[in-house]
Amino acid sequence: MSLKETLNSIIDSVDGAMAAIIFAGDGVSIDEIVAERADLDTQLLAVEYATILKEIRRAVDVIRMGTLEELSLTTTGSCCIVRVLNDEIYTALILSGDGNIGKGRYVLKVKSFEIQRELS
Amino acid sequence: MSLKETLNSIIDSVDGAMAAIIFAGDGVSIDEIVAERADLDTQLLAVEYATILKEIRRAVDVIRMGTLEELSLTTTGSCCIVRVLNDEIYTALILSGDGNIGKGRYVLKVKSFEIQRELS
Repeated sequence: MSLKETLNSIIDSVDGAMAAIIFAGDGVSIDEIVAERADLDTQLLAVEYATILKEIRRAVDVIRMGTLEELSLTTTGSCCIVRVLNDEIYTALILSGDGNIGKGRYVLKVKSFEIQRELS
Repeated sequence: MSLKETLNSIIDSVDGAMAAIIFAGDGVSIDEIVAERADLDTQLLAVEYATILKEIRRAVDVIRMGTLEELSLTTTGSCCIVRVLNDEIYTALILSGDGNIGKGRYVLKVKSFEIQRELS
């Protein structure tokens, strides 16, 4: 399965999924799928999430709480789940406010292994 | 119910709960409960989480994804859930790696309303 097919399968299997992105720690998007109804600037998302993740990984290191695996942000209108694929690459799933966060977390975790295989 | 009683009720009702903290955006802990078996520097946690939250709120604002409500970080050994109480105050629940994250999110959300009442 290609990266695009994997991202599509994530979007298709989670209610409320708006976008799935693979991006690098420097904020550059590697691949992405945006649902038709969604109006998202995925490049801006990748840049901002890369900045957040750099800060979080520094903090997790300072407080000695292991290695970061997942970040989840819930806002008034959406939810974003990010999985760490390796030191440099992340995958994110953006859901609408009424999306299925539990399933989103589960699917993203499972598919992360596929993405890692495809990237290696 | 006092703040300490509320924090205790959170710790008591979630499997794997190690600490519950209320802290300000400047990194100062307002109140906290640490489970007996846990070895955590809650002051350091408050400082680092305050820094992360400042960065996340800035990013959420830039990407126009509404207002931040909850942050959840999963690492190799633990999970930390943070709820935004208001512009200046947060509450966090730290769980061990095998803790019940779903129940932790639910209980922290419900108890956040109680904490907000106690703080007002």
